[in-house]
Amino acid sequence: MLIVAMCLALLGCLQAQEFKGHVSIILLGATGDLAKKYLWQGLFQLYLDEAGKGHSFSFHGAALTAPQQGQKLMDKALESLSCPKDLAPSHCDELKAQFLQLSQYRQLRTAEDYQTLNKDIETQVQQDGLWEAGRIFYFSVPPFAYADIARNINSSCRPHPGAWLRVVLEKPFGHDHLSAQQLASELGSFFQEEEMYRVDHYLGKQAVAQILPFRDQNRKALDGLWNRHHVERVEIIMKETVDAEGRASFYEEYGVIRDTLQNHLTEILTLVAMELPHNISNSAAVLQHKLQAFQALRGLQKSSAVLGQYQAYSGQVRQELQKPDSFQSLTPTFAGVLVHIDNLRWEGVPFILVSGKALDERVGYVRILFKNQAYCTQSERHWASGRSQCLPQQIVFYIGHGELGHPAILVSQNLFKPYLPTQSWEEVQDQPGLRLFGRPLSDYYAYRPVREQDAYSTLLSHIFHCRKESFITTENLLASWVFWTPLLESLALEAPRLYPGGVESGHLLDFEFSGGQLAFSQPLEVLLPELGSVPKPSDFQVLRAQYRESPLITAWPEELISKLASDIEVTAEQSVRRFGKFHLALSGGSSPIALFQQLATGHYSFPWAHTHLWLVDERCVPLSDPESNFQGLQTHLLQHVRVPYYNIHPMPVHLHQRLCAEEDQGAQTYASEISALVANSSFDLVLLGMGTDGHTASLFPQSPTGLDGDQLVVLTESPLRPHQRMSLSLPLINRAKKVAVLVMGRTKREITMLVSRVGHEPKKWPISGVLPLSGQLVWYMDYEAFLG
Amino acid sequence: MLIVAMCLALLGCLQAQEFKGHVSIILLGATGDLAKKYLWQGLFQLYLDEAGKGHSFSFHGAALTAPQQGQKLMDKALESLSCPKDLAPSHCDELKAQFLQLSQYRQLRTAEDYQTLNKDIETQVQQDGLWEAGRIFYFSVPPFAYADIARNINSSCRPHPGAWLRVVLEKPFGHDHLSAQQLASELGSFFQEEEMYRVDHYLGKQAVAQILPFRDQNRKALDGLWNRHHVERVEIIMKETVDAEGRASFYEEYGVIRDTLQNHLTEILTLVAMELPHNISNSAAVLQHKLQAFQALRGLQKSSAVLGQYQAYSGQVRQELQKPDSFQSLTPTFAGVLVHIDNLRWEGVPFILVSGKALDERVGYVRILFKNQAYCTQSERHWASGRSQCLPQQIVFYIGHGELGHPAILVSQNLFKPYLPTQSWEEVQDQPGLRLFGRPLSDYYAYRPVREQDAYSTLLSHIFHCRKESFITTENLLASWVFWTPLLESLALEAPRLYPGGVESGHLLDFEFSGGQLAFSQPLEVLLPELGSVPKPSDFQVLRAQYRESPLITAWPEELISKLASDIEVTAEQSVRRFGKFHLALSGGSSPIALFQQLATGHYSFPWAHTHLWLVDERCVPLSDPESNFQGLQTHLLQHVRVPYYNIHPMPVHLHQRLCAEEDQGAQTYASEISALVANSSFDLVLLGMGTDGHTASLFPQSPTGLDGDQLVVLTESPLRPHQRMSLSLPLINRAKKVAVLVMGRTKREITMLVSRVGHEPKKWPISGVLPLSGQLVWYMDYEAFLG
Repeated sequence: MLIVAMCLALLGCLQAQEFKGHVSIILLGATGDLAKKYLWQGLFQLYLDEAGKGHSFSFHGAALTAPQQGQKLMDKALESLSCPKDLAPSHCDELKAQFLQLSQYRQLRTAEDYQTLNKDIETQVQQDGLWEAGRIFYFSVPPFAYADIARNINSSCRPHPGAWLRVVLEKPFGHDHLSAQQLASELGSFFQEEEMYRVDHYLGKQAVAQILPFRDQNRKALDGLWNRHHVERVEIIMKETVDAEGRASFYEEYGVIRDTLQNHLTEILTLVAMELPHNISNSAAVLQHKLQAFQALRGLQKSSAVLGQYQAYSGQVRQELQKPDSFQSLTPTFAGVLVHIDNLRWEGVPFILVSGKALDERVGYVRILFKNQAYCTQSERHWASGRSQCLPQQIVFYIGHGELGHPAILVSQNLFKPYLPTQSWEEVQDQPGLRLFGRPLSDYYAYRPVREQDAYSTLLSHIFHCRKESFITTENLLASWVFWTPLLESLALEAPRLYPGGVESGHLLDFEFSGGQLAFSQPLEVLLPELGSVPKPSDFQVLRAQYRESPLITAWPEELISKLASDIEVTAEQSVRRFGKFHLALSGGSSPIALFQQLATGHYSFPWAHTHLWLVDERCVPLSDPESNFQGLQTHLLQHVRVPYYNIHPMPVHLHQRLCAEEDQGAQTYASEISALVANSSFDLVLLGMGTDGHTASLFPQSPTGLDGDQLVVLTESPLRPHQRMSLSLPLINRAKKVAVLVMGRTKREITMLVSRVGHEPKKWPISGVLPLSGQLVWYMDYEAFLG
Repeated sequence: MLIVAMCLALLGCLQAQEFKGHVSIILLGATGDLAKKYLWQGLFQLYLDEAGKGHSFSFHGAALTAPQQGQKLMDKALESLSCPKDLAPSHCDELKAQFLQLSQYRQLRTAEDYQTLNKDIETQVQQDGLWEAGRIFYFSVPPFAYADIARNINSSCRPHPGAWLRVVLEKPFGHDHLSAQQLASELGSFFQEEEMYRVDHYLGKQAVAQILPFRDQNRKALDGLWNRHHVERVEIIMKETVDAEGRASFYEEYGVIRDTLQNHLTEILTLVAMELPHNISNSAAVLQHKLQAFQALRGLQKSSAVLGQYQAYSGQVRQELQKPDSFQSLTPTFAGVLVHIDNLRWEGVPFILVSGKALDERVGYVRILFKNQAYCTQSERHWASGRSQCLPQQIVFYIGHGELGHPAILVSQNLFKPYLPTQSWEEVQDQPGLRLFGRPLSDYYAYRPVREQDAYSTLLSHIFHCRKESFITTENLLASWVFWTPLLESLALEAPRLYPGGVESGHLLDFEFSGGQLAFSQPLEVLLPELGSVPKPSDFQVLRAQYRESPLITAWPEELISKLASDIEVTAEQSVRRFGKFHLALSGGSSPIALFQQLATGHYSFPWAHTHLWLVDERCVPLSDPESNFQGLQTHLLQHVRVPYYNIHPMPVHLHQRLCAEEDQGAQTYASEISALVANSSFDLVLLGMGTDGHTASLFPQSPTGLDGDQLVVLTESPLRPHQRMSLSLPLINRAKKVAVLVMGRTKREITMLVSRVGHEPKKWPISGVLPLSGQLVWYMDYEAFLG
């Protein structure tokens, strides 16, 4: 056959390489937009790069269209293939002619079509006396078509054993964690993990693809810099000027987070954040390190993101999806997200992810801004331009567009002169007047690709060379959805801020972050004064009243926690002033978490070094168990403040590797620790909660243990799992100088009402037995608990 | 008498104020430079401010000079008194004439002179029918004269009971902690603490004096900002253009740290850093909070400072002090110091103190630079000038001079509009083209004093009004010396970097900081290539050899620690990969401290969350005792990394509030904890040291305990205090998978030699018994220990 003959002839003339087998590439969706725009060009580039290096090729463009019409459409796409600049036009024309001859259209609709395809490939290879190296199926089709195609390939189109199969998949890979999991498990029933190449085309963009090599080739300079001690922030930005017009049906279902953050920006994030493997060409190591980076991501909360929507969007959706005039979309077209990474390298460094449509400019970049850790004694007037250590220091992977107009890598000259492989990166000519990231271009060592290459060309080459690290594994995909899904769910009903679009948006989309939280810089009230009178927490005074004849403090949750935290601080300061220390006994559960966070982040002069922390009660599980009260204390408080190790007193529920065994005398041990360290066994402050059944600490209704008697610490049984508990006894609690009971949330309303009326009946409602002998009792209830 | 008559007349004509008593002000050193330049003018200002408000005054200029000549000198000084601009010249002339009449010269040389002074004051007051309110003695004399004067005042010049005595003292207040203590205790034998007013004239400078009021009046805006979450750095700067010419004899003894950092800059630091009292006019509260700020300062080390000396300095010293030509001074004329404050408010925020002579400009300021915690979605081209949250945010207390030329308070407009009392501060007119701290003046809310006032005038008024918070108490002074003295001692023999002076110095004095350490940005090697071939640690390879038939790694200390730390990390990673955890047993002592610091700051991917930390040995002291090995671990490692609480295993040397009591079975408890958690009781890595007597862990020569047998953990006796110890036994150590022995320093040379030759004789040299049964032993010795 002519094609193969040519192929072999070509091989023959090019240094008689060893024949490495025949490769069939089947492009599904061969006449679609992506194929026309990028994929055929990418396949041609692959052919240019690989022809003559030992393989023979055939290219099959496939679609649902009937053969003749399909061939016509495909030919049209192929006509516009362009030659790279560095290839002699005559030589390119020759190769292009070969490529066209090797490419044929094929209708793939039924199971039989696939069987025929398979047979044809086999026959052809046999006839030409070749042997098969492998097959690539590129799915450039909508996801709903995946399952059918996958089934057909698996059942009819696998090459014989010994040859490889690679299927290339395009996003979207699901809509959330569940759908991604379903899709993955469906695909997993047809293909092995190593057979699947999920494309995120950002990984093929030259500046992005260079991140790991750059980190590797500049290890020496970066080793000391690439960490929380030196990096001030990382910005991962993808701004577009276009809007979603014409794509509203897709966009309305996905929105900006699913469209770009969950995939492109997250992938870039992991490339920046991951630990660098010793050998970056080891795909397995790269993928494993990437996965570890995912595991270190701190969970996102509602307050980790700001959302926007350009004003014309809802109208576009109404028009394209025939929605009624009253329809208002909640789909965000702009998002800014603050990501934190909880490991020693990145702890505290903000990673800022931003993407949006209808913005003031089209640009994509990753910017690593370093901390200014210099002092320049010489006045600024005398600084040597560009070299002063007091000027900003940054590394930018400039993905493209923007004022520079091409991909680039920028390194501030006061940082270090980077190494970049000269065969693929060259220095950028200075453009006087051009400023990037606050500095003139001349302040940077700046490099651009010698040859700009489209992302798909790069990725097709990586697929061919089996470089799996440029693709999204199932684990990687699911890890990303695990990370993003809770945020998507929590934001589902949030109204995004409307912005006019383009330069008009002004500072409307600027945002600020602090303590893991994100907010637009310009408050909405200022913008929409007509929004009127929705009350905010701070509009309400903290109310003071009485409850069970003791002081009651009631407010909105935020104010309540804030008041309780400052009351605790005042008590702590008094105790430390008078006695040199402060003995604080804390309850577990969810209400105190907000309190712990408030204490950890808002109280700078809290005397932690002189505070002893005790537990009010504990579940009989190991201290490291997520169910353990101590674990909550550790996560939300201890790791943010400096309490000396020996001032921390977890309950000994796990002595001798047993849980609350009577014979281990854990309760007695804790009691004697208290007696030894706490004067009179009288805590300075005990923080209690109240259960919906009226329990407090781990003292439960209908159970006499711990309600009276001499025991300071007791073992009890909870009606809920884990049943076994250790608890301070009521008599011990009542010896405290101060007892605060924190009750929050609507679910507490009923018991709050009930307990307000009952007398001293600790057997029925243990909380009613809380009455410090000579100390003070204060109730802290939010409006929902108190007023319903 | 005329003067008093006038005084009373004056009182009479001015709204018949109630008479508050007579005040005598005695200026000692009345004809000296300070008096001529500032003090007489300050006293005149005091008179202008206070005359007519109820007191009568007399001013006594005193010196050693004989009366007639003294009077002449003093008259000359008084002639040049100037009137404030806001006072009508004729009225001022009248008041000036009064002031001159109230001021008289007096020779104070002998004890009798003081008795006469006392008698004269009493007589005069009596004659005029007045009563005495108090006396101010201003010591404007060299410190060597203090004691005599103080003794005389105390014995002869105290006013009668009921009237107050105030003595005003000028720095220097000692040369280091010891001398300051001696001086303080000497003065303390003559005066009560409340009688002494130690002047630091920086506290009288208007911008400095405004720091606390500014913090107080802008509490609401600053409350959330004034902490480590928002402040990026604080710069406290005092640059001079003059050099020490003509003052070499003073300067050579003091140097820049004693001259300005220990006092002026440290005082400013405390005003910025201290917790703000509820009421800032409560002197006692202010002073107490200041003292607390001192207590939170992290100790300085050699590496906390960079020192410089202008090139002409040594020549000036040689000339002024008649030193030989070969003399080279080590006195620094420039210092940059990095201060950290270990409390929750400021942890991690660098406070940069800089002062020097012969620099490029004269300027003093305190600059609080805030973290940039905003992302501006709009491209920089479109930012609203001065208001964008992405522009720098700073608050500057501009002490004076520099490009602005007057005191000022600057607040970035994108921060908040500050409140300043309009009677004393007014807005600064914009000066187009003037840039301060990287931004045009128009970017700031800028204020200047309505009336510029000299620091001494302010302080004299504060002395008169008993505002003790503007002065240095003895406690405050000693706290400052406690802070600075160790640095001064450790730097005493360091050669400062030479700089040409003025603009010529270029970037020579720029410095950088990281991890608490400071270094000049430009390495010295580049500057002084002729300095030649002093070997640096990095010039040496890490040597590998054998010691006692096990691998030996030897290097300079820095490289050795670095190598050991990365070996531990590799072992940790392997263990976690294979077993899910890493059991590490650590020794106490001083050598591991550098290791702990290296692990804490240089190893970002260390798997701390899966690491269990055990102690090799412990002293029988409470865990919180500074002598405790655990305490060292806590300070140098645990507080910097995140090891879960339950993975930390201190030795139970303090059970039931007793130290290592046999009956508490602490050793057995630790042994069973090890057996329960460490598979096979085989630690993944044990780090040991070696004593000069050949001991290791707490296993000592000539004592059989723990050398063999079944016990895993033993109680032992050390020849040194504290005698009682708990230690892992040799058999347990030898079960480890890996044992590393770290030996550092010249003092180990002898034992290193000896042990290299002996066989297995653990009874004589316990270290010789370390030989893991199936694990690996590696020796880490620095060159000094190994090569002497």
